[in-house]
Amino acid sequence: MSRLVLATRNPGKIAELRRILADAGLPVTLVGLDDFPEIGEIAETGLTFAENALIKAHAVARGSGLPAIADDSGLCVDALNGMPGVFSARWSGRHGDDAANLDLLLAQIGDVPEGRRGGHFACAAALALPSGQERVVEGALEGVIIDAPRGSGGFGYDPIFVPKGETRTTAELSPAEKDAISHRGRAFRALAPVVGELVTTA
Amino acid sequence: MSRLVLATRNPGKIAELRRILADAGLPVTLVGLDDFPEIGEIAETGLTFAENALIKAHAVARGSGLPAIADDSGLCVDALNGMPGVFSARWSGRHGDDAANLDLLLAQIGDVPEGRRGGHFACAAALALPSGQERVVEGALEGVIIDAPRGSGGFGYDPIFVPKGETRTTAELSPAEKDAISHRGRAFRALAPVVGELVTTA
Repeated sequence: MSRLVLATRNPGKIAELRRILADAGLPVTLVGLDDFPEIGEIAETGLTFAENALIKAHAVARGSGLPAIADDSGLCVDALNGMPGVFSARWSGRHGDDAANLDLLLAQIGDVPEGRRGGHFACAAALALPSGQERVVEGALEGVIIDAPRGSGGFGYDPIFVPKGETRTTAELSPAEKDAISHRGRAFRALAPVVGELVTTA
Repeated sequence: MSRLVLATRNPGKIAELRRILADAGLPVTLVGLDDFPEIGEIAETGLTFAENALIKAHAVARGSGLPAIADDSGLCVDALNGMPGVFSARWSGRHGDDAANLDLLLAQIGDVPEGRRGGHFACAAALALPSGQERVVEGALEGVIIDAPRGSGGFGYDPIFVPKGETRTTAELSPAEKDAISHRGRAFRALAPVVGELVTTA
């Protein structure tokens, strides 16, 4: 059974991708970065989700000697030309400060009228082989940015994002509901056949 | 001699456009918003410079009964998909807080490597007639965003912007040097023949 690394230390992400690969009937064993303590922090210096996902996937494939999957995602606001985008986690200048990032975004688009507050969550998922071969796919979730946070689930910008066709924010959806429609779920499901093609037959 | 309003209360901007119109040999008298105290604040709700310039020019043409010129400008950073753009003056969420806006921008692009820190100052200049007729032109100044402020001239993002072919920031140029190459100077000079066509023959 082929082994495959997901470039994360987040057990929730590993479990989600395991389910998706199993649903696709792929005979692979997915492990996380905790199995490779020698692989350190990987700088995300790219300016697109695909670029960052590929940087991470190649670094982990090189470091582990195994096929590696990595993802990068963020919120793209139409009125901000698709920003915060790859800067989503450091929009306020403070990396990982979800509250500061969300507050800044709300202040910036405070004057943008209701009909022009569209946006989408985007995710790029990349597969890289130790040989250097690579593939990248994308997933998106369209919606609107509301003007005050609602809900306590999820993370990041979830409390101010209402998916198209929903009335609840992504922070008000159950984890299973969110997985079913999320940008990351969609990108991972799009990547499954690529894993089938490049990894399980390798 | 045709009268024309520039949508500003800034005497420096009025003087600059007067010089440009005179250089173009146009027989017009340019006045500012101080001559029309009945025209209040105009909300800049547009998502492009051209949209905001047109909103302001039409509001002033309606309010004054005279042809009106308005401009909108900002800094467009390539790594941020052209943002802060129309949000330049309120990027930190605090309108007109130049220091906070500049500090935030530097923090956001702190990890962007030197070769990818291009950007431009952009300006849209619009002319609107009381009849509703309108024209809009744009000017730009290409350059790079440096990683620490230099110079005490100008305003806004001038201390972190080095024009292409320069070694000094726009905050280190003399006012005359800046006028000669600035995005606003270029947009106003592009608008002069339009004023000649639509106003002085009207």
